[in-house]
Amino acid sequence: MIKVGIIGGTGYTGIELLRILHGHPNADVVSISSRSLDGKRVDEVFPSLKNQTDLCFSSPSAEETKKCDVVFFATPHGVAMEGASELLSEGIKVIDLGADFRISDNKVWSEWYGMDHTKTDLLKEVVYGLPENYRDEIKSANLVANPGCYPTSVQLALKPLIENELIHLDNIIADCKSGVSGAGRGANQATLLCETSETFKAYAVGGHRHYPEIKQELENMAGQKVGLTFIPHLTPMIRGIHSTIYVDLIDKNTDVLPYFLKTYSNEPFVTILSEGEFPETRSVKSSNFCQIAIQKSADNEKLVIMSVIDNLVKGASGQAVQNMNIMFGLEETMGLESIGLLP
Amino acid sequence: MIKVGIIGGTGYTGIELLRILHGHPNADVVSISSRSLDGKRVDEVFPSLKNQTDLCFSSPSAEETKKCDVVFFATPHGVAMEGASELLSEGIKVIDLGADFRISDNKVWSEWYGMDHTKTDLLKEVVYGLPENYRDEIKSANLVANPGCYPTSVQLALKPLIENELIHLDNIIADCKSGVSGAGRGANQATLLCETSETFKAYAVGGHRHYPEIKQELENMAGQKVGLTFIPHLTPMIRGIHSTIYVDLIDKNTDVLPYFLKTYSNEPFVTILSEGEFPETRSVKSSNFCQIAIQKSADNEKLVIMSVIDNLVKGASGQAVQNMNIMFGLEETMGLESIGLLP
Amino acid sequence: MIKVGIIGGTGYTGIELLRILHGHPNADVVSISSRSLDGKRVDEVFPSLKNQTDLCFSSPSAEETKKCDVVFFATPHGVAMEGASELLSEGIKVIDLGADFRISDNKVWSEWYGMDHTKTDLLKEVVYGLPENYRDEIKSANLVANPGCYPTSVQLALKPLIENELIHLDNIIADCKSGVSGAGRGANQATLLCETSETFKAYAVGGHRHYPEIKQELENMAGQKVGLTFIPHLTPMIRGIHSTIYVDLIDKNTDVLPYFLKTYSNEPFVTILSEGEFPETRSVKSSNFCQIAIQKSADNEKLVIMSVIDNLVKGASGQAVQNMNIMFGLEETMGLESIGLLP
Amino acid sequence: MIKVGIIGGTGYTGIELLRILHGHPNADVVSISSRSLDGKRVDEVFPSLKNQTDLCFSSPSAEETKKCDVVFFATPHGVAMEGASELLSEGIKVIDLGADFRISDNKVWSEWYGMDHTKTDLLKEVVYGLPENYRDEIKSANLVANPGCYPTSVQLALKPLIENELIHLDNIIADCKSGVSGAGRGANQATLLCETSETFKAYAVGGHRHYPEIKQELENMAGQKVGLTFIPHLTPMIRGIHSTIYVDLIDKNTDVLPYFLKTYSNEPFVTILSEGEFPETRSVKSSNFCQIAIQKSADNEKLVIMSVIDNLVKGASGQAVQNMNIMFGLEETMGLESIGLLP
Repeated sequence: MIKVGIIGGTGYTGIELLRILHGHPNADVVSISSRSLDGKRVDEVFPSLKNQTDLCFSSPSAEETKKCDVVFFATPHGVAMEGASELLSEGIKVIDLGADFRISDNKVWSEWYGMDHTKTDLLKEVVYGLPENYRDEIKSANLVANPGCYPTSVQLALKPLIENELIHLDNIIADCKSGVSGAGRGANQATLLCETSETFKAYAVGGHRHYPEIKQELENMAGQKVGLTFIPHLTPMIRGIHSTIYVDLIDKNTDVLPYFLKTYSNEPFVTILSEGEFPETRSVKSSNFCQIAIQKSADNEKLVIMSVIDNLVKGASGQAVQNMNIMFGLEETMGLESIGLLP
Repeated sequence: MIKVGIIGGTGYTGIELLRILHGHPNADVVSISSRSLDGKRVDEVFPSLKNQTDLCFSSPSAEETKKCDVVFFATPHGVAMEGASELLSEGIKVIDLGADFRISDNKVWSEWYGMDHTKTDLLKEVVYGLPENYRDEIKSANLVANPGCYPTSVQLALKPLIENELIHLDNIIADCKSGVSGAGRGANQATLLCETSETFKAYAVGGHRHYPEIKQELENMAGQKVGLTFIPHLTPMIRGIHSTIYVDLIDKNTDVLPYFLKTYSNEPFVTILSEGEFPETRSVKSSNFCQIAIQKSADNEKLVIMSVIDNLVKGASGQAVQNMNIMFGLEETMGLESIGLLP
Repeated sequence: MIKVGIIGGTGYTGIELLRILHGHPNADVVSISSRSLDGKRVDEVFPSLKNQTDLCFSSPSAEETKKCDVVFFATPHGVAMEGASELLSEGIKVIDLGADFRISDNKVWSEWYGMDHTKTDLLKEVVYGLPENYRDEIKSANLVANPGCYPTSVQLALKPLIENELIHLDNIIADCKSGVSGAGRGANQATLLCETSETFKAYAVGGHRHYPEIKQELENMAGQKVGLTFIPHLTPMIRGIHSTIYVDLIDKNTDVLPYFLKTYSNEPFVTILSEGEFPETRSVKSSNFCQIAIQKSADNEKLVIMSVIDNLVKGASGQAVQNMNIMFGLEETMGLESIGLLP
Repeated sequence: MIKVGIIGGTGYTGIELLRILHGHPNADVVSISSRSLDGKRVDEVFPSLKNQTDLCFSSPSAEETKKCDVVFFATPHGVAMEGASELLSEGIKVIDLGADFRISDNKVWSEWYGMDHTKTDLLKEVVYGLPENYRDEIKSANLVANPGCYPTSVQLALKPLIENELIHLDNIIADCKSGVSGAGRGANQATLLCETSETFKAYAVGGHRHYPEIKQELENMAGQKVGLTFIPHLTPMIRGIHSTIYVDLIDKNTDVLPYFLKTYSNEPFVTILSEGEFPETRSVKSSNFCQIAIQKSADNEKLVIMSVIDNLVKGASGQAVQNMNIMFGLEETMGLESIGLLP
């Protein structure tokens, strides 16, 4: 039984880790920390767990954390950076659901996240935890940077096209739509029901923190620079990301579907839809799947790729557990087999 | 491995059976019928299952149905009544998620459901499938009438009070609120998003078909007549039932919480909240739990009981699987352990 | 042209006053205050007004306020209490959308609102601004206490029954459901979209601040004590209150509809539905109407009254403008003629 | 007083016409037709109008229609084509909210709408009813083709750029998101609340009927061919369209904001947001406004234009009334002054 610790368990990725690990046969959450809720029963904060756990929140520095085999950081950026080293030095594996280790270039990171990066040494050993791209490296990693939600959705949609050199790299447009849970559980006027339901808008139009992450990883795939426009939008629902991606094929007559099928033929969580089928976010709600479809535009000028994930599962906590499974040599799908909740 | 058949699998209780049984270690859906979709792949109708099953819809009279150990009817009333006998005669157990066998008095049934009851003999052997009340009878049942969603929610809320003779029986008010999935998946102007979101209303105010079912079972508990007012409401969400029930204690100073705790101390799916805690439907969304809280009114005149379930799980398909587990001697919670999806 | 000031205009009742008064032919908002947004353009805060007004937020003590004919307080309790006297002494009429002057008994007020009442003298002159009950008094009032949202909905539903002595007064149950805008615009984890959509719950079950207000006014109608149980619930939508009220008729065979029709025959904003029709909140969304229906329960034991209002209009800002119209001798419906937004 | 008739008044554009015209000082709905509801009171179908009108649905061929000054067709395509000529010949002006007269080339129309165009003569006299482009022609028109919702949103966003020749015309991408009311009020499984809430998807990816309409009008603006990719999406809300449009500036350093401000300086319903402001659909909910913002992408490679409208108002019934006002020489904003409903 893998002993799991969670640092910062009071947000949506925290409760989602608890939900997923509650059904995991080989892992047990033994420690969950929260500065503000130290001592409080977890099931008082998350009533979905009522009487299903006796776990209490502890201080982040609690002894229990030291006894874990793996620790998940479900914290704002800046926290994992400070706490990871000590855990790693004691032989505890670390998976950061935050952004501290996603960007290889610490100067780029500082620019977008507004603080210095204090652990640049860890940037050398960290593995970017998108299993579809880095499975082998994850197997032996001690520190995994769990990808952002938008980056997961966009990378999986573009991987077959970039790896097979099918598209122009200077004109990629990712028009992405996210449910409100991506904005977190903090008290915030902007994400009140009365401010976000029955409305739709773009946000962070000038530049979103996931932009450099997507760009870095697309460039890693391509081995060269890519030109990317990325506009995130907020859609009035709780969970889900839908990315609509517009690219130019080098050869407009390429039949791209076979490339998608081949790339993902052995991937347990990536599903390629048939011609004429289009994904919707609810098909993957509560599940770790990503569904992808492709379509040429009416005038055959553009290739449109649509991908959907649950931002809290494949876009966060589910992918983190997938990474844990890989790091510990478990079946990769363990605890993640359930299908989407529909309706 | 229990071989499961589903008759009428194209509605919400159908897909919910498929979702729950997909994660059940000892049961396998081998047959699912739909008159209109005969031959069509199930994952074309329910994209959450895409590539997770090769099952196709078959005709209700297909041979596969005959090879099942148990058949669920997820059909409108009138269908199970016609199909159950033949299956039972071949030794196949039957669980009806519809209303055909819930009412013992066939005249009352006919009055509320607008057709003659053609299988009154089966009314003698059927067991009402509320495990908290009829677990022993379910163990040996061949035909189970799975309770309605409102009746499940109201009965569980009142059971400790009625069985312990704590309340006046002539003045019970159940003000119930349901998500829209209770109205089914049929094309219907009244349940369009634009007709049901951003609005709240009562419906079937003059008389809802669950009224005689609730009344019958409360009277079975009480061993005498009860006076019940039941008003269902539609609330703009997909899943969930919240019942707010108003009763008069015989002795206004009774401390009722201990009766609730005792009644449900061994029940795996009924959770009694602590004093000052109140349930919300999302705490049990996607799970088979029922959460119940009690509170005296501000002037101590009324006892208020609040109970929540997911209408598609404990109110339908989850309870049906719970009944299957009991009928086949499996662990009662098998396939039903997952906690609610929050948020 | 009536010169209107608004104190505390950054919440939902504030923007709703701005919206309604924008369409009012005889009133002009000349001053709107906000401590935190002093100097900021109103249309930067409320983009629905973009380029439709040049108004800026000012300090609450600004000179502009003194030039008004009427000032609306759209503030938390405690604020109007402090600011009203000075305005009144300068001949400015005051309408308080908050709770400071709704409760006649200052001890009861202190108990529920957790602070001393410092202006008990004003409690003698204030008029409770439910036009259907106090129209004549409002005409000559200088200080009006605009009713709470739940109290408006419940009082209008019960007025014909209590005034005509048709019901037992000791056993009134009001099961009320409100959209989330009733909880205000402040940053609050509890009212995030992810915490309030796709869920339903009761709240303030032990005692809500509108309880003493409803009780006081029902007792004023009845001329004697009433026994009231009031449970508010939160329903996942922005606007609307639906009250379901259960009472016992003194004579179970009374035909009550004619009493409702008669009571409200001349009321411009109260609509009685026909037999078999039931109200839904969206029918009055964005409008100042209250729709009411009645129904006897299936066993004829209870009379059920259902009433709906838009909590921000008839339950707050619309009623406030209705009061202003009455106080200034204008047509009572001026600026309030528009019908509900459907869908 | 203009006498207005509505053909096909049972859908969402029908009730929206009734709502807007209810507040119009110079127009009166004297006839509303519905084949299926002939004789039924309008306020029984639309309870927001309860007791506010005595209008009843009549047969489409009713005598009342002939007495109108103007008739709105709020019908599926094919209906106005059949009925317009007779009305026009009697001197009645016609505004078609459907698609029958929007496409000049009847072959293109037939291809996309799947039926022959039987009134090609009317295509010569019809005016496309986008006042911002064709105000002068509308003034003297007898037959107006009211634009589609997506086309309105996209055209207003691109007009300043195309008219001033600022962008490349071969690579325009319109990623549009619509609320569910755009799909109409017909009973349809696909638009049930349980099928469309809590999910997001693209639809009509291969080709939407608004594609040729947008293309035609952009080409009319440009005086040459344009290359357009248009992907519509369904977002879980009732009202609103948000278009995110990606274009390439000919000169990447062009300051485009002044062009937008100049183009719309005298337009009553088009609002250009300031730098750093982005529109959301709720800002224009229930109003006839279109709000537009522009932003360069993070790497300065793309210009992004965002525009929002209420699909039922500026995208349908509001624009139809705006056209009526222009055709009858009334103040263009009459009956359309109200601002958006927020929240």
